[in-house]
Amino acid sequence: MQEQVAAGIDIGGTNTIIGLINERGECLAKESIKTWDYPRVEEFVERLHAIAVAMSATAGASIAGVGVGAPAGNPDRGTIHASNLPWQGVVPIAALFEARFRLPVFVTNDAKAAVLGEMTYGGAREMKNFAVVTLGTGLGCGIVLNGEIIYGHDGFAGELGHVIVTPGGRSCKCGRRGCLETYVSATGIKRTAIELLATEIEDSPLRSIPLPELGSVAIDEAAARGDSIALKTFRRSGEVLGLALANLAAVIHPEAIFLQGGAARAGAWFHDAVKQAMNDNLLFLYKGKISVQRSTLHGGAIIGASALVWRATGMSGKGGSVTPPAPPSNP
Amino acid sequence: MQEQVAAGIDIGGTNTIIGLINERGECLAKESIKTWDYPRVEEFVERLHAIAVAMSATAGASIAGVGVGAPAGNPDRGTIHASNLPWQGVVPIAALFEARFRLPVFVTNDAKAAVLGEMTYGGAREMKNFAVVTLGTGLGCGIVLNGEIIYGHDGFAGELGHVIVTPGGRSCKCGRRGCLETYVSATGIKRTAIELLATEIEDSPLRSIPLPELGSVAIDEAAARGDSIALKTFRRSGEVLGLALANLAAVIHPEAIFLQGGAARAGAWFHDAVKQAMNDNLLFLYKGKISVQRSTLHGGAIIGASALVWRATGMSGKGGSVTPPAPPSNP
Repeated sequence: MQEQVAAGIDIGGTNTIIGLINERGECLAKESIKTWDYPRVEEFVERLHAIAVAMSATAGASIAGVGVGAPAGNPDRGTIHASNLPWQGVVPIAALFEARFRLPVFVTNDAKAAVLGEMTYGGAREMKNFAVVTLGTGLGCGIVLNGEIIYGHDGFAGELGHVIVTPGGRSCKCGRRGCLETYVSATGIKRTAIELLATEIEDSPLRSIPLPELGSVAIDEAAARGDSIALKTFRRSGEVLGLALANLAAVIHPEAIFLQGGAARAGAWFHDAVKQAMNDNLLFLYKGKISVQRSTLHGGAIIGASALVWRATGMSGKGGSVTPPAPPSNP
Repeated sequence: MQEQVAAGIDIGGTNTIIGLINERGECLAKESIKTWDYPRVEEFVERLHAIAVAMSATAGASIAGVGVGAPAGNPDRGTIHASNLPWQGVVPIAALFEARFRLPVFVTNDAKAAVLGEMTYGGAREMKNFAVVTLGTGLGCGIVLNGEIIYGHDGFAGELGHVIVTPGGRSCKCGRRGCLETYVSATGIKRTAIELLATEIEDSPLRSIPLPELGSVAIDEAAARGDSIALKTFRRSGEVLGLALANLAAVIHPEAIFLQGGAARAGAWFHDAVKQAMNDNLLFLYKGKISVQRSTLHGGAIIGASALVWRATGMSGKGGSVTPPAPPSNP
């Protein structure tokens, strides 16, 4: 009998990743496409289906279901609605995938998929109160309280990236200004670097990088070589995130906050600045009691999206001590 | 047989209120003392016990238990630890009351007591995701998600008053600067009025009020008579609170936010400014979907504190559709 796998799909503002994950959380195959190469969502679904079919044939595995993590995914309605994707308005993504795959499809917010990964395979297996912050093109956040994923009244809790941290500040794709993700995300960190290249006069290797290639990886490499603009970029980004995490802590009081995503894997210059700023701004009640940890998971969102399949179909899932997420009740 | 009542106690930074509440949520008697008149906590407990005994004799009622709402109350340990009370450090308030009353004593954060009131007798009886913001000497916040009160990892979730809204801003009793409650609370509103009396030159009846008497009630009265400094005070306070509520909404996505406490009863100039600023700053996902309501409860905190007794002793309690609060698990 062929091994059963789940297709985990992580729809991001830049890349969409699809992987086949078995019940032990092992990724058997993985591929990435550029989300904006598909202005029509039907072509996007068609392409992912073709990749999945090819990957499962190569791996000799049978796909049991599809888990989709996407920005502003609505788990109950199976829709996505995001400002940083090519498709406008509310997209019935679950129905589109179901029609093509002829398999059960489960949708969640990409950040909540990251939470599922962390609570199924990662550092939060024994925790009942924690948050996961994903630093990708945007900034996502999944929250677990009392052992349950928090969806809020209508499925959109955890939009920490759209907390306004600087009224009148940087313009955001959501139409407002000053959102956290305009300062802290792969894109936000890049914007801070550009700002510093304008306001500072120091020499920097970043000045000779074409803007399309100036990303958090290039800035991290410059920081590793001691470049002061790059180091200052991460320090400032860390200060903004640290304050935001201290404020998040005052509202939900988590045991730990996990950082996931490409930018979270930057060097100690970033992580130390985040921890320092969070602790500097933490209310006395929480001092020394809330850890900020880099996630040990890699490819977190597809792993978490795959966990949706095992949990929903009741096949297996390494449950840990946490309650499976309940879908939100929409009145 | 004598009617059974619960003693509900609301320990505030200015006043402490004690009342006798029956199982239908009716307040049979109520009295207020000045918290800072009791530099020794033992005298404070003694005085409240004497009041309770006298009130129950007059009402012909028998006290079944004591529910205490207090700033930074820890429900599991029965302690309080607040920067705006006369007693320093961690105070074992439950043990002190138990020793004097010889009755079961239940402690909670004053804001969470307000939540209990709202979900037992108020506007949130059918809601599973909501927040209550109390505007007293400080700013408290109780949160219910998935039908459960949120305590966080160690009992201190909901410290919205200590979210830093202006880094380097107004000095707060917690030792930091820029906390929301330094701008929005009875005290915060007064500070804004004083600031405007310094920065503006308009005539205002507020200029002839001695500072100790300049409170949110006096400012509200001046606003009702059209005083521009008073109106501007509430507009600014409303703008700060509205932005903070929009940011809170992005994290927890509530169905409604209830405003309780003296300052919340100010005129439309305040409430309208709060609603306007919240909607102006709300992410598109939530627009028109989250209501800001003035609580219909009066004396909310003692009512909510009393509900603790009925829920904990399993005697009765108008349960509504929500799950009784679980104590936080302290590792």
